[in-house]
Parts: sequence; structure tokens; C-alpha cells
Amino acid sequence: MIPEKILDSLLLNEGGTILLLVMDGLGDTATAATSWRTPLEAARTPNLDELVKEAACGRGIPVSPGITPGSGPGHLALFGYEPVENEIGRGVLEAAGLDMEITPRDVCTRANFGTYDANGIIIDRRAGRIPTDKCKELVAKLAREIPSIEDVQLVLKAGKGHRFVTILRGDGLDGDLTDADPHHEGSPILTVKANKPEGEKTARIANEFIKRANELLHNEHPSNGIMMRGFSKTPDIRPFPRKWKITSAAIATYPMYRGITKLLGLNVLATGETAADECRTYLNDAADYGYVFLHVKPTDAAGEDGNFDAKVAAIEATDAQIPTLLKRAPDVLCVTGDHSTPIANKAHSWHPVPVMVRSKVCGADRFDRFTEKNCNTGSLGIFPMVELMPILLANAGRLDKFGA
Amino acid sequence: MIPEKILDSLLLNEGGTILLLVMDGLGDTATAATSWRTPLEAARTPNLDELVKEAACGRGIPVSPGITPGSGPGHLALFGYEPVENEIGRGVLEAAGLDMEITPRDVCTRANFGTYDANGIIIDRRAGRIPTDKCKELVAKLAREIPSIEDVQLVLKAGKGHRFVTILRGDGLDGDLTDADPHHEGSPILTVKANKPEGEKTARIANEFIKRANELLHNEHPSNGIMMRGFSKTPDIRPFPRKWKITSAAIATYPMYRGITKLLGLNVLATGETAADECRTYLNDAADYGYVFLHVKPTDAAGEDGNFDAKVAAIEATDAQIPTLLKRAPDVLCVTGDHSTPIANKAHSWHPVPVMVRSKVCGADRFDRFTEKNCNTGSLGIFPMVELMPILLANAGRLDKFGA
Repeated sequence: MIPEKILDSLLLNEGGTILLLVMDGLGDTATAATSWRTPLEAARTPNLDELVKEAACGRGIPVSPGITPGSGPGHLALFGYEPVENEIGRGVLEAAGLDMEITPRDVCTRANFGTYDANGIIIDRRAGRIPTDKCKELVAKLAREIPSIEDVQLVLKAGKGHRFVTILRGDGLDGDLTDADPHHEGSPILTVKANKPEGEKTARIANEFIKRANELLHNEHPSNGIMMRGFSKTPDIRPFPRKWKITSAAIATYPMYRGITKLLGLNVLATGETAADECRTYLNDAADYGYVFLHVKPTDAAGEDGNFDAKVAAIEATDAQIPTLLKRAPDVLCVTGDHSTPIANKAHSWHPVPVMVRSKVCGADRFDRFTEKNCNTGSLGIFPMVELMPILLANAGRLDKFGA
Repeated sequence: MIPEKILDSLLLNEGGTILLLVMDGLGDTATAATSWRTPLEAARTPNLDELVKEAACGRGIPVSPGITPGSGPGHLALFGYEPVENEIGRGVLEAAGLDMEITPRDVCTRANFGTYDANGIIIDRRAGRIPTDKCKELVAKLAREIPSIEDVQLVLKAGKGHRFVTILRGDGLDGDLTDADPHHEGSPILTVKANKPEGEKTARIANEFIKRANELLHNEHPSNGIMMRGFSKTPDIRPFPRKWKITSAAIATYPMYRGITKLLGLNVLATGETAADECRTYLNDAADYGYVFLHVKPTDAAGEDGNFDAKVAAIEATDAQIPTLLKRAPDVLCVTGDHSTPIANKAHSWHPVPVMVRSKVCGADRFDRFTEKNCNTGSLGIFPMVELMPILLANAGRLDKFGA
């Protein structure tokens, strides 16, 4: 990536509109089990086929060769932030994933209910995976009984099963703390420690919260205690609209992606539950924005399940919505993923992600299908995904010439 | 490359087995003289053809575009060490190449016999390339007469022709010294100087050794003196098995590669003289290792000779051994070279090296031949060879996800 200072000097305040359509976990691999086809190859995608004829293609490496990204690093790269230098903490990601409001003063943590024996030894770190409703009930009790400690407000929200998030909200807090969770059974809960002096207050409050919570839960079964880990503040990241000098919005059905984009300073638009809802939101509510991020989730879920047909169907369903997007006629349309989630891996993977960028000046590679294999030989090459933003801005006429 | 600290946190302690088959100097170029075919294209390689159908391909750049690597940097990159930051000194490489034991206290140097005139001016830096037997005789004489200087032991070993290696073994030695060899005829021998204060002792002993050796050789002809250069200690490199958390072995017929891998902490397995011997060693003696490096030399020798047919034959001979390797069924099989040695160059070159990586989750590019041209358009792209190790580890399931 060109140094930020130079990039800043090249960024123009105006230019074309950009739509980034991300099919989560889009990239895949050919294996014998799928007759050596990837879902993108197998899917009927008449609209993507039309787009790709006029697009420049390539494959993006989200983090580094061989490195499998989580959703955080995968998206940071798409947004032009070096993912290794801009890690989003686990607690913050979890809070974002529960659609919680997060302020720069907050320290977020992943918390969960567990089972302790009479000697305070953890015997089940997941409290038998209690039902979500039970979790909600216990979280409500804790929130009622421990609204604050010292001058720090506690904001709790239940997640799925045994999981919940705790936000410590107040002045003088720091996220660089050790976990209270020993990460294995057979140990007592650990005392939270500050890694730096400015974290002393936060550690004290976290330890006090755990102590009081465990007293309140004493007679519960199996969830007679809590654990906390992944203490973190919002990352010290330059907001996206200022970094790239572009008004920006995000359209996503999943809280996690709404959360990440909100952290980065994008306007998160209200939308429905399906890709069709999201595309209508783009058509109807995104006129004010130079840059729009539209996130489609089902491709990743199908990959995680190892369900080839479901991934093909998810791609086809997204393809069917493309005409809606084109009604708004973005100057630059990019279709890609945040990482690969191959059927063969049933998980996120390191494989480079197919990318197409269509604009009037993109330099079309003239492929007739949008596939991993075609993208291997496209004019964008196999490139670090963090470079995608400058490529999109260039296509939108938003980047000046460097040097005379 | 992702920062080492992050990589460390992602490395798992277990996973699949990896076999790295290196045909030295494998990469080549198409020229009119060879009817625009490379040796890989011309060779009959039924086994590589089968492998590549299920492999991900690309081309690795050993050091940097346009930079021709020596054997040291070429192999460091293959093993995941940034070759520019981890140079192995010339003296150390030469000692390794003669299969000498090297300890961390040692300073190794390349030495050779030369011819001086009556005024102490060097008139032939190679002493007329004296026969190896003569070299052995003279080295034996020096070793007998000068076993040590001060408290430093001298360990000598004859190489080919006029060359030999001198190891200075003792405490308080440093390898950062200037050469005694002026690198051209018509000059007297140079006084060795320390580049840092901690090298004063080593410089004094080196100069004393040259003085005494030249007195002992005074009546010899044409080898009436010695020269020394490339003073170096073993590099301060994190051992390979610890760096990558994998038990590791090397199979190589040439002392140089046994030496480099021993320096890096791999277990060097006993083997015979041919690729067939090496492959049998892999089949029979490598069961204990997660990672095995198998080095085949004749491809490079043929390239250095500019002998197209010999390079084709060397590739075919290696191809014929692949069924033996497959009997052990490594989870990840990578075939590549440490650098290119094109027929047209008759030397190592800067050209990217063809790479194939086969595993159940590699993301097969479905090529039907393993050639430079196919590798140009593979899904691994044209990538820094130092990234090969993370790619191999990812394929072996030995790398955790980065970020949530």
C-alpha cells in the first residue's frame, strides 16, 4: 500500500459512486467431491456473467498467503485498513455482533455463564450450553442488581446459549487486560490483571463484577458463575469516510457486519432480512452516498455447513438481485467476498477471493464467467485485498495522479 | 509476511504431514535454441502430470524481482526465513558444504592456496588450480603444524582443487571481519581487520594463521601461500522446528544442503547418492516427521552446464520416483525448486520458480502439466517464496484463523 500521507494528497473530494457487493465467504475450491467445480462455476449466474464481460478481475488475499482471516480482518482489508495493524478486539466484535451501541470510552468483553464446583473450580465452561432464554433471564438479573461499579456503568446483553457481552462504560478505562477465563476446565477463575498501569481501574472493576455476579448466581444450576475474556476498546482507527474522503453507507442483515461498519464510521442503513431487502435498500435509500457496502451472508453459512447446493443457491439468489442494484447504476460496481469459505474446508480459509471491478474505465478482461479460475488470470492479478480501495477509488475518478 | 508474533500465535502443534520436494534450479525459460520449450515442458512426466491435476500452482520469487539467489538465500526462502534478513555467511556455507561440524562459537572462512612472487605479491589466486590430492596434502600439513593459536583451535578441511575451509574454534570470536583476500592478482595479501571491537581477537588469530601458513608453504610451488575470506559465524536464526512448531527432517545427497538444513535445526537423515535413494529414505525412515525436505541436485547441475537434454533427463528421473513418495501419502506435497537455473543462463537466475502444492484442501487449478507457463496463471499467483511455508502449513491444517 502506498503510504497514507501520499494517498491523502491524491484523494479527491468528489467522483463517481461505488457499490461494493460482498458475498461473505464467496471464494471456494474445486474438488473431486464436487466434480471439480466450485459453487461459482456450478451456479447459474446470468447477471454476474453479463457484468464480468465488462469487468477487471483478480483474486484478493485478505491478510497474507496461507493466513485464514476471521470476519474482522477480512472486512478491514476490504475497507482498505491493513488488517494486521488494525485488529478489532474480540469483545468489541462480540458487542458489535449483538448490535450494541459502542462508544470510544467503552471496554467490551465476551462473557459467558459456566458451572463451578463447591471449591470454585470451573467444571463446565459453557454451563451445559443453557438455553438462550435462560441466558436472557440471568443477564437481566445481573443487569438489575449490578447496574454500576464505582463510577462505571455496566451494560449487559445476552447472546446465544451461554454467551453474553458486558460493556464497562466510563472514564479512564483501558482494554489491555488479561482474561478472567482460564480457557479450560479444572481451574478456578483467574484474577483480571492490567497489562499497563492505565488498566488498573478496569481490572479492579472487572474483578469486582465477577465477584458480585458469582455471589448473585450462587444458587443457580448449572450456571452458577460467569467468565470474561477478550477485553477491548474500539480500535483507534481513522473513520472510513474521512480516510477515503467519501460519504459512506453500509447495508447488512447480520449484526456483526453492521457493528464493524458502524465502528468504522459508515452510516448503517435500516434494511430487512434477505438479499432482496438489502438490494431494495440500496435502490431506494442510498442516493446520498458515494460509497455503499452491501453484505450478503448466506454464501458463508452454506460454506461453513459444507453444503455445496446451498452455496450455489445463495450465489444464484444474489445474482437474481443484481438488476435491482443496476437500476441505481453505480459508477463502480465491485463483487467479491471477505474471504473464502470452501465446501471442502467447512470453514473460513486462506484461498484468495475472486474479485470483479466494473466501471467505464476498469479495463475489462472479457471473461464470460465470474469464477475463481478466470480471476486467477485477470488484470488485477492476485493482490493484497487491502489494495482494493485504491483500485475502486481510481475507477471512480477519485484518485489524482501521483507525481508530475 | 505476517509479523512473527502473530504467526506464532496462529501455529498449531499438530496437523498433517508435509513433503517439500525441491528440484534444485528447476525453473527455466523458453528460447529459440530449445524450440521455445522449457525442460519441464519437454520432459515426459506422467507422475507430475497426475499430481498437478489436483494441485494449486504458482511461481515463487526467492528473494526479490530481478535478484538471483545463491543456494543459501534460495533455501532460506523455501524454509520461510526472509533471505535478506537471515544471510548465512560464505564461510559457514562452505564449511556446511564440506559436511564439517559447526558450533555457535566457530568462525568459518573460505580459504584457498595461491601463488605469491618473491615480493609477496599474489600472482595466481588459485595456484594454477592444484589437484585436490595436493590440496589435501597441504591442508594436512597446515593442520599438523598449526593445530591452534592462543586458545583457539584451528579445524581445517580440504575442498576441491585449491580450496579449503578453516574454522577458528574458541571463545570470544566474531565473524564480522574484512577479507585477507584482495580478490585480484597484483596485490599483496591484506591484513584482516575487525569491523567491530569484539572481532579484534579473531582478526589477530586469522592474521597470525596466514603468517605461519605462508612461512610453512614458503618452498612449495605453485601453492606457496594462502588467502582467506568470508569470515562468518552461524547465523542467529530461530531453529526451523521451533519456528514452525513441526518435527522436521532433511534428505539430501549434497553436503551443502545437508549443511544448511543442519544449521536450521532439521534432522538430516542418512541416505544414498541418487534421487531413488533419497525417495526410499523418505518412504522408510521419515515416519517420525511432520515436515520433510527432499533435495534433488541434478536439475541444477544440468542447468549450469547449459545441457537441455540432461535437465530433461534429471526431471524425468525425479518424476519416476514420485510413486515411491506417494506410498507414504504425505497430506501436503509441494514440488518446486530453490531458484531457476535456465539453460540459456548456464547459471542461477532471478526467474520465478514453478510451484505446485497438493492437498485435499489446496484448491486445485486443474492444470494437466506442471510447467512454468501454467504456474504463471495458478491460484497461488507469482508470490514471494518466503510465503510458501504458511501456505504449506495452512494446507496441513497447522494454522489457526487470524482474528474473530
